[in-house]
Amino acid sequence: MRKYLNEVTPETETAKVIGWVHEIRDLGGLSFYILRDRTGFLQATIVKKKAPEAVLNAARDVSRESVVMVSGIVKPTEKAPGGRELIPEEFEIISRAETPLPLDVSEKVLAEVDTRIDNRYLDARRPKINSIFSIRSNVTRALYEFMFSEGFINITTSKIVAAATEGGTELFPIAYFDKEAFLNQSPQLYKQMMMAAGFDKVFEIGPIFRAEEHNTTRHLNEATSIDVEVSFADHNGVMELLEKVIIAAYGAVEKNCQNEIETLGIEFEVPKTPFPKVTYAEAIDIAAISIDEEISYGDDLSTAAERAIGDEMGEHYFITDWPTSIKPYYAMPYEDEPEICKAFDLMHPKMELSSGAQRIHQHDLLVEQIREKGLSPDSFEFYLKPFRYGMPPHAGWGLGMERLIMTMLDLPNIREAVLFPRDRHRLTP
Amino acid sequence: MRKYLNEVTPETETAKVIGWVHEIRDLGGLSFYILRDRTGFLQATIVKKKAPEAVLNAARDVSRESVVMVSGIVKPTEKAPGGRELIPEEFEIISRAETPLPLDVSEKVLAEVDTRIDNRYLDARRPKINSIFSIRSNVTRALYEFMFSEGFINITTSKIVAAATEGGTELFPIAYFDKEAFLNQSPQLYKQMMMAAGFDKVFEIGPIFRAEEHNTTRHLNEATSIDVEVSFADHNGVMELLEKVIIAAYGAVEKNCQNEIETLGIEFEVPKTPFPKVTYAEAIDIAAISIDEEISYGDDLSTAAERAIGDEMGEHYFITDWPTSIKPYYAMPYEDEPEICKAFDLMHPKMELSSGAQRIHQHDLLVEQIREKGLSPDSFEFYLKPFRYGMPPHAGWGLGMERLIMTMLDLPNIREAVLFPRDRHRLTP
Repeated sequence: MRKYLNEVTPETETAKVIGWVHEIRDLGGLSFYILRDRTGFLQATIVKKKAPEAVLNAARDVSRESVVMVSGIVKPTEKAPGGRELIPEEFEIISRAETPLPLDVSEKVLAEVDTRIDNRYLDARRPKINSIFSIRSNVTRALYEFMFSEGFINITTSKIVAAATEGGTELFPIAYFDKEAFLNQSPQLYKQMMMAAGFDKVFEIGPIFRAEEHNTTRHLNEATSIDVEVSFADHNGVMELLEKVIIAAYGAVEKNCQNEIETLGIEFEVPKTPFPKVTYAEAIDIAAISIDEEISYGDDLSTAAERAIGDEMGEHYFITDWPTSIKPYYAMPYEDEPEICKAFDLMHPKMELSSGAQRIHQHDLLVEQIREKGLSPDSFEFYLKPFRYGMPPHAGWGLGMERLIMTMLDLPNIREAVLFPRDRHRLTP
Repeated sequence: MRKYLNEVTPETETAKVIGWVHEIRDLGGLSFYILRDRTGFLQATIVKKKAPEAVLNAARDVSRESVVMVSGIVKPTEKAPGGRELIPEEFEIISRAETPLPLDVSEKVLAEVDTRIDNRYLDARRPKINSIFSIRSNVTRALYEFMFSEGFINITTSKIVAAATEGGTELFPIAYFDKEAFLNQSPQLYKQMMMAAGFDKVFEIGPIFRAEEHNTTRHLNEATSIDVEVSFADHNGVMELLEKVIIAAYGAVEKNCQNEIETLGIEFEVPKTPFPKVTYAEAIDIAAISIDEEISYGDDLSTAAERAIGDEMGEHYFITDWPTSIKPYYAMPYEDEPEICKAFDLMHPKMELSSGAQRIHQHDLLVEQIREKGLSPDSFEFYLKPFRYGMPPHAGWGLGMERLIMTMLDLPNIREAVLFPRDRHRLTP
């Protein structure tokens, strides 16, 4: 029975392992083969005078990053990583790597992100990179577990759509047989329809597509969105839920990913709750103090403004009570002050993570707001119809998976949080 | 505190509930309002002589499928569904439905599937339809739980790709800025790359897109695929895993969805394991006995052939040992009989659910097989490169979520298993 490398301890007597040859060191009479799998490292030590001929031959032939099967006796030793070494009795090359490698997996300094992503299959062999995606997988697990345990229904909505969610910009067009279609920017309209269908509480974790032209370290053209919608909830209810979701994600990483955190060499702390709330008006004031650019009430928050506010706050926080004019048409205006709406953003000190709102559930008000934004209600007919036949009040949000991972692990570039990023210039691998 | 309708029992004293008005029956001095939410039904009984004026007014104004809040005293009664009724002290219309409704939610006979999907927000209010998606959500939950508990890493791969997985057919083209791109048919190449990256065991549940022209009751142009890939496993290993996955899905439904099964009025049984295996050659022989059409070794299995074999088998089964010529280039040929390969299909008596194989992990053999299929290795460069630098042996499969649900619940049309189907003619809602 094959063992993972972390299953081989100083107490193990014999082991059969499979792994990649991470490093080879030849000291004359002795040679060391550091094996690697997703669980860790193991040193195979070959004493040339004692090793079987077949082991010596295979070990001489093997190249770094080849896949090998090694079996033999395990000995405790202070000198090897993990306090044990494997003395091979069998050494078989399962899949030989060509030389030279396009990317050096064992080097301590990482290559440029572009080179690395071009060779993601090698790049992701690095423990640091593997750790990021192990953590992302753990976060995904925590999110599903949390949402299901809270009674949410998981839904799957179409990514090919006939109309834009928020007007006609930033869409990738598709040739859908003889029709024009688009890749969906957000499941927003669909999850709202499921509120009309009485699904009560739904979530979806899936891809969203935005044809944004700008190439930054915080934007992707294809991303993963965690989308939630809740009937009979208001903006405060879903902010509380969002806080719990963030804590569930961080909590799972703290509990299950200590090795990965250590490999990444980061400081990791579960955020304190409740997250403070500042209104948009207060946020603008905070930003105005410390940034040079002009900023007026009703402006969107620039990157510089977000940073200034984030520096001041120093922790996760909500920005609430946004001007209705700069939020999407479906955000619910306050009854007594309709120029402000029940929308919020969840911010990490470094960037926005999530946007949400109580939604408008009254058909006529929604039509009015769509017109107000210069859009045509006619293009939203399939969306508007449900609002005429018993649409409950509801609220929800969308949370960016990659930004959640990026800020959690203090990654310098959002491309580090996705295996195969898509940006303005990148379509492969 | 609001109660879900199934939380109101004959023992409850008072309750405040929110729901949709499913039916209204006026018997003169008495009127009944059958309320509905995703958990069930509750009868609100208004005795006109005794009810508060405000309750009478609201109840008179309300229309079917409106959202209402009702609170009052609960009384046990044999005559109402669930053995209890609510005597309203408050009755508030939260969201009024216009009349007439585009689709009758309470009617016993369902409308045509096209009409229903056009009005999915109403259609999905029906307990039968809601039950399908509640079960689908439970299956999704079971799949994530099972895969994570087996130590799999969840991955997310790009849906926008530069090249086809299996050659140039059946692809939806996208305008990706100034480049041509496609919607991905399958995460196949990506999950194989993650084997090269040492991820060991990965899964992804996500959308796949196929521009198939034909419009049948078993095909969708956008579907959900459950994809799995395992290093150091062969076809037998992943068949065993697939069997466990099917049992996990059925087992969760049996355990958690008895109400839904009852609502759907279906017979539900967890399949027996192990699923029998027949070779392709045996399957052809079985089909030849009972179908009229000509069928020769090396032909793909027609729908009629699949049905004939399914009738004979009468349970889930695997078809193994396929001719290499009719399986994709990445299926591993048997070493001693290369015209047959280590590919398999998992079949429900009514249709194919999953295809899988041990994959070729040797670069040169893979290039040869790609050429054999009349494809150009040049268009697969990003995919082929990993095979040169330590690709482990591996195997995997893809399982269609909608077909799993369709066969599990004996649905007549695959469109019943997806909220917003996309087919040859349908792009909305």
